Amino acid sequence: MSQAGYVAVDWGSSSFRLWLVDRAGRIVGERRSQEGMVMAVKSGFASVLRSHLDALGAANEWPVVICGMAGARQGLVEAGYVDTPAHLASIVECAVSVPGQSRDIRILPGIAQRDARAPDVMRGEETQLLGALGRDAAGEAIICLPGTHSKWVTVREGTVEGFTTFMTGELFGVIARETILSHAVTGADEAEEMEAFGSAVVAAFETPALAANLLFQVRSRQLLYGGKPSSARETISGTLIGLELAAALPGKMPGNGVTLVASGKLRTLYEAAFKTLAVVVRSIDAEDAVRRGLSTAAEAIWKI
Amino acid sequence: MSQAGYVAVDWGSSSFRLWLVDRAGRIVGERRSQEGMVMAVKSGFASVLRSHLDALGAANEWPVVICGMAGARQGLVEAGYVDTPAHLASIVECAVSVPGQSRDIRILPGIAQRDARAPDVMRGEETQLLGALGRDAAGEAIICLPGTHSKWVTVREGTVEGFTTFMTGELFGVIARETILSHAVTGADEAEEMEAFGSAVVAAFETPALAANLLFQVRSRQLLYGGKPSSARETISGTLIGLELAAALPGKMPGNGVTLVASGKLRTLYEAAFKTLAVVVRSIDAEDAVRRGLSTAAEAIWKI
Repeated sequence: MSQAGYVAVDWGSSSFRLWLVDRAGRIVGERRSQEGMVMAVKSGFASVLRSHLDALGAANEWPVVICGMAGARQGLVEAGYVDTPAHLASIVECAVSVPGQSRDIRILPGIAQRDARAPDVMRGEETQLLGALGRDAAGEAIICLPGTHSKWVTVREGTVEGFTTFMTGELFGVIARETILSHAVTGADEAEEMEAFGSAVVAAFETPALAANLLFQVRSRQLLYGGKPSSARETISGTLIGLELAAALPGKMPGNGVTLVASGKLRTLYEAAFKTLAVVVRSIDAEDAVRRGLSTAAEAIWKI
Repeated sequence: MSQAGYVAVDWGSSSFRLWLVDRAGRIVGERRSQEGMVMAVKSGFASVLRSHLDALGAANEWPVVICGMAGARQGLVEAGYVDTPAHLASIVECAVSVPGQSRDIRILPGIAQRDARAPDVMRGEETQLLGALGRDAAGEAIICLPGTHSKWVTVREGTVEGFTTFMTGELFGVIARETILSHAVTGADEAEEMEAFGSAVVAAFETPALAANLLFQVRSRQLLYGGKPSSARETISGTLIGLELAAALPGKMPGNGVTLVASGKLRTLYEAAFKTLAVVVRSIDAEDAVRRGLSTAAEAIWKI
């Protein structure tokens, strides 16, 4: 019996997204929740997945393709890593079946850079890359995928040559929430915010070693110049993004600039940072990219 | 009635230390607690101080000299800041009396750097500087005072010319405790730990812009090379200290090197970092320094 469609799942550390996709590629059902790995480790990956499939009444013959943390060691089944240099097509070829399930479930592996001087891993972003660039991408691309753990990836002729992860998003979270600067984090008006953000990007980009001082200046400025804690949140964010860009922007930029794979606020901030530094950027929506990547995998695996 | 002695208090953000010092300079009583500013704001600075004085049975005619957060806006009474360039003697001259108390209580002010491009503040460290260098320090000194908020200070002929704060200690705390790296933080043997620390210092010192990646490598290395989470804590610490040193170490070092004012584990780590980078350092115990600074102030104020 041939499938009439399939289920695509993006399973992050802190979020879960599921789509039912019919044979024509149309989304006919969708689920979103906070049941990322952190929660799923406790409640069980298999039962989280089943509950969402049941909620949508997904036909049992529809197979499931998953990317992200469901393939981690603590996940549904370990899907390992493809090592760099990793052709994007190999992600699909190395998909792992989940045993003992009533339906066909495949998990896409991550990518590992087994370089003792610069070890690195990704899990989920490889599927965004596949969706953003396609299986047979020509030429060279520098891709920036911002997030909790931002990735900067070099892809040449469809092969991931190398990548670098920065803890930018996670550092922002703990600094804005857990340090003395948390008292300073309140809103200003949007124009002020973006100006503060841009200044912070430039300051950290120009003198990255000062990062831990530039952060403290959020507090010093408030103590000495008083008044409203203007744009503290954007200053912290700009400092950390400027620090990331100081290391990640290649000395020699490819002609097509940087490909940014992001959504929402992160997309706005990174686009603003690139503009401030006069870097050419083209943007691809991150959710579109992961869905397209999962579709590419489903089509290759099941000839849907 | 002349005083037979005085009380010295070092009131930090998270700690409280009090000494009774007799006319001959001997410590005749001591109290330590976690009632730093964070706790004292809730229970009341005056009652915290009173409880410790009562516990030691401190004579009512003994006056009290305090440095640190008791002089903050939320403290016992605001003691303001002396602006840079700030002669160390001016800290004593600008001590503020606490009104409405049964005994003579003076709080030493902090130092502010009112430079819109590099605003900075210290409160407590000025007293350590006074104790470490004396009121009439000759020549130039670069002083490093590591901690929650590490300070690097340039003093010339007894005058604080400028300083820079790095959030190194606070960043270490939140990263080791609140991020994904917290899972990796467990002990290794001490030789391994110090080797990991030294490597991390050098890596961040050489390429400070990579700091947020060097931190993530703690996790990548563990995922890819498995085994024990060797020395993760020291790698985080070394990365943040290396980042600080990349900005703080002056291009032209004074002949006497860096003066380190630190105690315990921090002293061990910073001494190791300086050794790794072949920087000449002389160490002064931080607690000795603050006590000596408070004594210098008491002697000047009350001619004890």
